[in-house]
Amino acid sequence: MPANFDHIGLLGFDVFGTVVDWRSSVARACAPFLQAHGVAADPLAFADAWRAQYQPAMEAVRSGRRPWVKLDVLNLENLQRVLDAHGVDATAIDPAILAQLNRCWEQLDPWPDAVPGLLRLKRRFAIAPISNGHIAGMLRLARHAGLPWDVILGAEIARTYKPQPEVYLASSAAAGCAPADVCMVAAHNSDLAAARALGLRTIFLRRPHEHGPQQATDLAPEQDWDLVADSMEDVAQALGC
Amino acid sequence: MPANFDHIGLLGFDVFGTVVDWRSSVARACAPFLQAHGVAADPLAFADAWRAQYQPAMEAVRSGRRPWVKLDVLNLENLQRVLDAHGVDATAIDPAILAQLNRCWEQLDPWPDAVPGLLRLKRRFAIAPISNGHIAGMLRLARHAGLPWDVILGAEIARTYKPQPEVYLASSAAAGCAPADVCMVAAHNSDLAAARALGLRTIFLRRPHEHGPQQATDLAPEQDWDLVADSMEDVAQALGC
Repeated sequence: MPANFDHIGLLGFDVFGTVVDWRSSVARACAPFLQAHGVAADPLAFADAWRAQYQPAMEAVRSGRRPWVKLDVLNLENLQRVLDAHGVDATAIDPAILAQLNRCWEQLDPWPDAVPGLLRLKRRFAIAPISNGHIAGMLRLARHAGLPWDVILGAEIARTYKPQPEVYLASSAAAGCAPADVCMVAAHNSDLAAARALGLRTIFLRRPHEHGPQQATDLAPEQDWDLVADSMEDVAQALGC
Repeated sequence: MPANFDHIGLLGFDVFGTVVDWRSSVARACAPFLQAHGVAADPLAFADAWRAQYQPAMEAVRSGRRPWVKLDVLNLENLQRVLDAHGVDATAIDPAILAQLNRCWEQLDPWPDAVPGLLRLKRRFAIAPISNGHIAGMLRLARHAGLPWDVILGAEIARTYKPQPEVYLASSAAAGCAPADVCMVAAHNSDLAAARALGLRTIFLRRPHEHGPQQATDLAPEQDWDLVADSMEDVAQALGC
């Protein structure tokens, strides 16, 4: 294992995009809903539009304009917003149906390498999501996808959203680790930049198709991260697991 | 499975005594320490004396006399108090040695039936500690003992100690469950009484030797709990896992 991972006590993982393929899973869940409600959108484009509301919604909490609220609430509001943008009156749809569709964020497929890689990493390291997902959502997603977390950390512990420092710091503290003894694994340079600024180790796990074949962001490392890998199994291999 | 467990979404477990055998594990860890410091106490009696400080220490937090503090801090203070009671000046001992001994609470052996039973229960139910242990301690204990938790809930989520209602309610809420959809599994009638008062289901898992062969408490159910079992595997069997 590279020398600078020797005393890592916790591997923290971004989840949406890094561990699971949200785009194709959300599109798959949306397809029958869109058909049933006569929305002529491509399901992948609809998933992209839904996801495009994610950062602005969290920004309201990060900035303090809005009190802490869990991600499932933001996702549901964002769904209603995207339906409006597609000419659908979301208020006319049975709330139970919208809630059911919103649950698709808890039923995402892992990237094929994710579970085998996590199982190898778990042999040596404690592993936990440090995600913007809330605890219940991360719990149900883990049971759906077979993600073998030791503990669920992340935004809800800190009551704000990444990349606010509190999320990394509160997650490290809850695990009983100094920031320098935690390593963040993420497919997003901005996530790693925030983690590094606080002293965490960083692993860039490239996911060039998170946003589909035309992805233009996060194709390459933007800093000299402690490790760059192309699969979770490569991460495990590099860390000697 | 009994009809009244049909819609349970989370099994929450007391840990110290219910899942792990703290007494013999703590005694084993204390034995060489007591010998090295010339304390003529029986290690099991010393473990009992250490544990006897547990409820009063938590009561200071429960009553509001003291702000929230994690269990490892209380355990360390209690160790110093018990050493004093045995005529040992704890302030003369290297703090690193005391901290190391205090870590024995994170290195407890599971009862032999615990891990096999939890693995069976986990197939059907989300499983989590709802313990007075803090998250980091529960994490390290789980990795030591092979406890396959899906998520770690309990006192730290609520920033107070069982049997305060907040611990059960905050744990249920964090898992996305109504209290009625959570079942508490514990070897202590008082824990189950507090859980039932809030609407949780209850399973009494008898541990007649938690306090050694002379145990006088919690030998029998004190209410008509939803299930009474003699091992974690019996719990799994009764719940159809």
